[in-house]
Amino acid sequence: MTASLEQRLETLETRQALLDLTSDYCHGFDKRDFDRFLAIWWDDAVWEIGPPFGSFTGHEGITHAVHDILWPAWAMSTHYTTNLHVTADGADSANGVCDVYCIGNTSDGQAQTVAATYRDHFVRRDGIWKIARRTVTMQHFSPLTGITLSAPQ
Amino acid sequence: MTASLEQRLETLETRQALLDLTSDYCHGFDKRDFDRFLAIWWDDAVWEIGPPFGSFTGHEGITHAVHDILWPAWAMSTHYTTNLHVTADGADSANGVCDVYCIGNTSDGQAQTVAATYRDHFVRRDGIWKIARRTVTMQHFSPLTGITLSAPQ
Amino acid sequence: MTASLEQRLETLETRQALLDLTSDYCHGFDKRDFDRFLAIWWDDAVWEIGPPFGSFTGHEGITHAVHDILWPAWAMSTHYTTNLHVTADGADSANGVCDVYCIGNTSDGQAQTVAATYRDHFVRRDGIWKIARRTVTMQHFSPLTGITLSAPQ
Repeated sequence: MTASLEQRLETLETRQALLDLTSDYCHGFDKRDFDRFLAIWWDDAVWEIGPPFGSFTGHEGITHAVHDILWPAWAMSTHYTTNLHVTADGADSANGVCDVYCIGNTSDGQAQTVAATYRDHFVRRDGIWKIARRTVTMQHFSPLTGITLSAPQ
Repeated sequence: MTASLEQRLETLETRQALLDLTSDYCHGFDKRDFDRFLAIWWDDAVWEIGPPFGSFTGHEGITHAVHDILWPAWAMSTHYTTNLHVTADGADSANGVCDVYCIGNTSDGQAQTVAATYRDHFVRRDGIWKIARRTVTMQHFSPLTGITLSAPQ
Repeated sequence: MTASLEQRLETLETRQALLDLTSDYCHGFDKRDFDRFLAIWWDDAVWEIGPPFGSFTGHEGITHAVHDILWPAWAMSTHYTTNLHVTADGADSANGVCDVYCIGNTSDGQAQTVAATYRDHFVRRDGIWKIARRTVTMQHFSPLTGITLSAPQ
């Protein structure tokens, strides 16, 4: 059976919507735009960051993670998401895997480099795609010893 | 009102065209292909790089910035643009925000790491999308002290 | 002549398929998922890595390169592909250029930073797009002296 133009178009639109979610994670977190950050997650989403941070559930848990743990831990962060690959999982859910590079300063002023993979379960409700579960695997999270990151003045 | 297939397709095509502009910025600049670089900007575009470089207007200003300031400042650069998010702004203009990581050597042989955000105003004229204004915010621009970047021989 | 909706849709689908190939290269290589890695290459593909690794031909050559040379050389790698730009080259082939940043540890435990450009020739056979030729140009491949990359425990 051949997909209709409408179905094929929707597949591309979905892919774009999921890509936007992975981008808004970075913009929201790094630019400290919490409304943008929270809007990518369903109310009952699970964010499994793993060591050293743990797992967080729902908008309440995610708000706690960002405001009480992660933003205080980072003085400045920049995340770069690439390599998004999406696999359909029924009409209203999809699985994604993407990679992220991050460089910034922790709150002690130490420059850090981080490499991680995000495995996402995306769900569509009432026509809107959001993240239902994000599982993080870190390849490295290490100090850039001897390097000081700062913006030009 | 529901968008037509034609309108939905055009939205995706526009998104792809804007992504290509952000990619061609990197290819043109890093590979020193000035025709490719200049082609992403409207004749009257404004490029607000900010400190330490300043702002440049029009093809003349952009040509000056690249040939007289930026290429002489970099012995080798590599820019990686990700996280493009686009917001429509009428039928023939759009706003984008994307992040860029850059690593390379300045002309003194010092390795540098740069993180920045590009906020773009894209305009379509005669069916062609180009950048009308790009505003740069740098999160860091710092020497990779003790590190020497070179290609394998 | 104006392209039909069907043709325009196919152009976008092709672009997405090629992007997925460049992403699967990273996922397959870094996560040591060889089936995923090999599936991006045609049986007769050529992979020109250049110095210090050389060129490899066909699934046999690519298998040799990955299993006998590259995976043994890297204890841990993370590749980030961005800036994909595609140029059509007839109905069933296309040329792409994209940039990759890579950071990881070689097998001696030394952290490394790599910047490269991939120039790809993509070919469609029986409706499937794969890489027929990938040519690598490295801008740098250098030790991150004094830096140790490791994952949080």
